[in-house]
Amino acid sequence: MNAYLLSIGDELLIGQTVNTNAAWLGERLSQMGVDVVEGRTLTDRSARIQSALQDACTTANLVVLTGGLGPTHDDLTKKAVADFLGVELVRDDALWNRIQTYYKKRNRTVPERAAQIADVPEGFEKLANPIGTAPGLRFQGAASHGALIVVLPGVPSEMKAIFDASVKPLLAERTDLRSTSHRTLQTTGIGESDLQAEIGDADALLPDRVSLAYLPSTSGVRLRLTAHAPDNDIATQLLDTAEARIRERAAAHIFAVGEVSLAEALGRRLSESSLTVATAESATGGLISHRLTGVAGASAYYRGSIIAYANDVKVNQLQVDADALASHGAVSEPVARQMAAGVRRVLNTDIGVATTGIAGPGGGSEAKPVGTVWVGYADAHGTHAAHIRFVNDRSMNKELFATAALDMIRRQLNRRMGKVAASPRYES
Amino acid sequence: MNAYLLSIGDELLIGQTVNTNAAWLGERLSQMGVDVVEGRTLTDRSARIQSALQDACTTANLVVLTGGLGPTHDDLTKKAVADFLGVELVRDDALWNRIQTYYKKRNRTVPERAAQIADVPEGFEKLANPIGTAPGLRFQGAASHGALIVVLPGVPSEMKAIFDASVKPLLAERTDLRSTSHRTLQTTGIGESDLQAEIGDADALLPDRVSLAYLPSTSGVRLRLTAHAPDNDIATQLLDTAEARIRERAAAHIFAVGEVSLAEALGRRLSESSLTVATAESATGGLISHRLTGVAGASAYYRGSIIAYANDVKVNQLQVDADALASHGAVSEPVARQMAAGVRRVLNTDIGVATTGIAGPGGGSEAKPVGTVWVGYADAHGTHAAHIRFVNDRSMNKELFATAALDMIRRQLNRRMGKVAASPRYES
Repeated sequence: MNAYLLSIGDELLIGQTVNTNAAWLGERLSQMGVDVVEGRTLTDRSARIQSALQDACTTANLVVLTGGLGPTHDDLTKKAVADFLGVELVRDDALWNRIQTYYKKRNRTVPERAAQIADVPEGFEKLANPIGTAPGLRFQGAASHGALIVVLPGVPSEMKAIFDASVKPLLAERTDLRSTSHRTLQTTGIGESDLQAEIGDADALLPDRVSLAYLPSTSGVRLRLTAHAPDNDIATQLLDTAEARIRERAAAHIFAVGEVSLAEALGRRLSESSLTVATAESATGGLISHRLTGVAGASAYYRGSIIAYANDVKVNQLQVDADALASHGAVSEPVARQMAAGVRRVLNTDIGVATTGIAGPGGGSEAKPVGTVWVGYADAHGTHAAHIRFVNDRSMNKELFATAALDMIRRQLNRRMGKVAASPRYES
Repeated sequence: MNAYLLSIGDELLIGQTVNTNAAWLGERLSQMGVDVVEGRTLTDRSARIQSALQDACTTANLVVLTGGLGPTHDDLTKKAVADFLGVELVRDDALWNRIQTYYKKRNRTVPERAAQIADVPEGFEKLANPIGTAPGLRFQGAASHGALIVVLPGVPSEMKAIFDASVKPLLAERTDLRSTSHRTLQTTGIGESDLQAEIGDADALLPDRVSLAYLPSTSGVRLRLTAHAPDNDIATQLLDTAEARIRERAAAHIFAVGEVSLAEALGRRLSESSLTVATAESATGGLISHRLTGVAGASAYYRGSIIAYANDVKVNQLQVDADALASHGAVSEPVARQMAAGVRRVLNTDIGVATTGIAGPGGGSEAKPVGTVWVGYADAHGTHAAHIRFVNDRSMNKELFATAALDMIRRQLNRRMGKVAASPRYES
């Protein structure tokens, strides 16, 4: 089974809203074994919606439309779908009653535009909306070239609720779901080219029917393995073999399998080892702390942070030596080590990690250009520090600095536990 | 001038990567007066890329492709574009030399696949990549039905750098840019329905030819005004009138005009007033600090933070009264006030802001359910606190808590300066 996604709404085209619906649907459908073969973002114009429907219904056997179901004048998805199929919009009595009741309860008359929520294209079945007014809709027939058309609201929470409640069970019954399986190995602390060089020729390394894609992000490079196999057991075997071969070459850089964030993977390690952590942040300005506390249950291992943006906060709160600051500058190895040791001592944790660097765009010099960061680390055995240079804008530098700090903790934990502890390799 | 965006990459279709490139390009192009009429997300299959190019080149006069330019085997955008236009890929000497030099410097041989970065479809001009290896490309001619084809890498930072350096100047010369103008009024501290109720019927309120859209996000609700006018002067007049009428009803909630973040707008206010700020964060876990330091030059007004996740950090570092903690609990008005006053005193700033709440999913109770937050504020005049209840997941609750804290500073500054200072209104 394969799917074509149509996202409707000018706000998506002009970039005021990022199309997270398509990503969410893509992920859900892929996980279920549906191949998502294409997606389109369309303006609220009937002719283009109909032309896209024609392409979609002849390309895929599942077509999911989102958006344009609301009560405002630019919501014309239902009309366009009806016109494409050559049917009329008809008022649905049950929906119409519900809308009237809703407004009656609030002592308001039904706005003219709200009434159109009750209109349904002929031949469509409704899909209950557990959290909003506009229902989802579905149709399958000769007019859609046999494709199953599903229409969902654009509001993410409603779209997701209807999909999970009504569309997922419908698809789960299909017998034409793919036996292609994915597995993602998450790496960090190494750039894409260096990782490729370490892994070498993937076609030679991996079993036949397994392919490899490199997906870089600010948290590292994800390695997506795809296996094409007649059944799940064989796919799992193929992926196990592929994973083992990649681990032989790049184990030190892999922090998780599957869609787990670096902070989450690290959090599990800290929990398991009953270790606590604190951060002392200058260049990352709270981002390491934000990432760590993004994980539910972080209070089990994360105690707090001192964000020392101003130099005297480094001295007064983190006990950094004022002379070291004066002679080496804030962005320096001794200051990074002292910040890490200081926050560990002051907040009474097992591990302290620190960043001091230049996120940019200002503040760089020849000796310490924008993108330079010192990451400091402290535990009961002493301190450690690493110097890294990135070349990006402020926002991305902050992300990469924070990733480097989390990765430093991970690599130091590996070292302690006698695991492979290769140094990180960053490309500039 | 109108544009069609083609985003290439399976990772977008299966939802492993959210298509932020399309949103960024859509916003940039719209701002320049280019109508973005459609977008497609395509798998790495030549036939579909060529079919989409055919549709795009006959629908729009600018076609922007992103992704699939890298060195890996699934990067086949250039080949597909060349096949669509009926031309060959040719090795570019300058690029090839640069790649050889890059690897020579690192004492490595050029990987076979890296070489294909130097291949360019015949007839294309290169667009310099200031921060990466793969250049952008452009073509316009009979084979593209007269449409300008621009090919950019999928890595967001490289795509943006090439667009701003090479594509933007190219488009700015065009004479067929639209006379539709947008203006965005950014509000915060009020939910969409309440804001709609305060503004009332937009059609009656605003001049003809101006329309209004509500765009909610975790930073607040953006009000997008669109004016359709024959020239820019008239459009500006229409938007000025519309803005003034909306301000009559909702001025207290508007923090900026245009695409300025809340942290940026607040930063300007603090700079202008020569005020410094520090944050004491529990529930937001560093996010307020991360947002404030996301703004270049934040060191002028932001000094630091104490992220007090553990209760004893609140007591030891923020001088919160242990008795108050014990009797009221960490998520309480007195603790929020004391945290704000504490960080202001300890880090020696004009303003302190604090959050203590329950982001979820665990930790809630009947009296203090998940989504509850107390925001504390302190300045030379004393302390202030507000209790807010959101109903979202952990990640969104953190964002909304941080927004509420930044908004509290903004509203308190307004109050001080005798400006309208309505209380925030949150919907649950």
